[in-house]
Amino acid sequence: MIKVVLLGYGNVGKHMFDAFSSSSKAKIVQVYNRSKKELPSKIPQTESLKDLCEADLYLIASSDDSIVSISGKIPFHDTLVVHTSGSVAMDSISANHRRGIFYPLQTFSKDRSVDFAEIPICIEAESNSDLELLRQLGTAISNKVVEVDSSTREKLHLAAVFVNNFSNHLYHISEEILTKYGLDFDLLKPLLLETALKVQQMSPKEAQTGPARRQDSKTLEKHLHLLDDPLYRTIYKDMTQSIQATYGKKL
Amino acid sequence: MIKVVLLGYGNVGKHMFDAFSSSSKAKIVQVYNRSKKELPSKIPQTESLKDLCEADLYLIASSDDSIVSISGKIPFHDTLVVHTSGSVAMDSISANHRRGIFYPLQTFSKDRSVDFAEIPICIEAESNSDLELLRQLGTAISNKVVEVDSSTREKLHLAAVFVNNFSNHLYHISEEILTKYGLDFDLLKPLLLETALKVQQMSPKEAQTGPARRQDSKTLEKHLHLLDDPLYRTIYKDMTQSIQATYGKKL
Repeated sequence: MIKVVLLGYGNVGKHMFDAFSSSSKAKIVQVYNRSKKELPSKIPQTESLKDLCEADLYLIASSDDSIVSISGKIPFHDTLVVHTSGSVAMDSISANHRRGIFYPLQTFSKDRSVDFAEIPICIEAESNSDLELLRQLGTAISNKVVEVDSSTREKLHLAAVFVNNFSNHLYHISEEILTKYGLDFDLLKPLLLETALKVQQMSPKEAQTGPARRQDSKTLEKHLHLLDDPLYRTIYKDMTQSIQATYGKKL
Repeated sequence: MIKVVLLGYGNVGKHMFDAFSSSSKAKIVQVYNRSKKELPSKIPQTESLKDLCEADLYLIASSDDSIVSISGKIPFHDTLVVHTSGSVAMDSISANHRRGIFYPLQTFSKDRSVDFAEIPICIEAESNSDLELLRQLGTAISNKVVEVDSSTREKLHLAAVFVNNFSNHLYHISEEILTKYGLDFDLLKPLLLETALKVQQMSPKEAQTGPARRQDSKTLEKHLHLLDDPLYRTIYKDMTQSIQATYGKKL
């Protein structure tokens, strides 16, 4: 049984906590919790890093900015300290510790539970034995554990920004357009979900449809005419140009 | 029982055919099918518009470009002719007919079946009685039938382009980034699906996360540095700027 101290009980921390609760291979023995959120079970918690107990590893699930400072204050030497961020390098963790990464490639929100079994966990460590421990920790909650070094993790995070943050912003733009014309965003929900479901089975390159792909210049012009917001017009133009470049139209 | 002649057996046509097959309120009595695809049941089909039989309505599920020409060749007068396109105006249908729209707000692909019950059907007609018939036809296959005029349908289609065509292109960009670095697109599939699932329950404006939202300029710079393709860099910059404008950063 791997003993874990969880540092942070925000979005990611809470989901990690829940995932490990139902695992028989790893156990959270203490939570560093400065949020006002109560833990659902009677695991010891503390608001002070000085009071951390001993464990096999320290899992930092706090904001990116606080990784350096938290890791520097863990009152042990040569213990395994890992963080859960997609964009922070492994060497941001204090050199006082054996360092590692345990990055779940998913977006977490307060009110939605997610199935950890399906979430890829990207791991990295400085030694083979620590990597092995992180692999065991990963398989305790997920079916997909992959070794990814910090440089590759950056690219993964970049790609994740496109599918998650940018797609979500496109949803927001659509909602704004609909609201402006008195229409309900609910109308688009089945479409946007099917768009994401489709590429679970087929490549997005194959799945592409729409006026940009079929070079329907009449519709493209009409759409640009309907968009008042200059930023949204720019996004419409960029995306159209990029789709057309992908499918071979000379620019 | 509403008798329908279906014109076109491409992606949309085939899905419409399947949806009506299991309905007790409407029945496809003939299919104008110039594709090489075989119908799954013994419904009469023809390759010639001259041979169309009589019906309560003629449902054009062909490409946008052929709506004018097909509707002009339907050999009846004053019959109800409707098309299924999001972006073609109702008056593109020949004035020889009573005209209408039956637009399912969904993306269809060959190899994926979809649940029509959840798909909003947008209807429009020139008379109340035809509108009523289209409403009945819609409820025969879907739980969500909404009256939407041609001008509003244009805006709905524009919003649909953002959530469907543009999101899909973002997926494609991500796949390209991953492939370039020897990573598997499968790694991002749970994330992109969760992104779409999340906004089924919460507003995309609330759901927004990521470096642009939290104004993490270090990560933003690193990401721009990683993108070689000038079009992808432009998209990254514009999306970032638009997210920051949404959340109140002065530009």
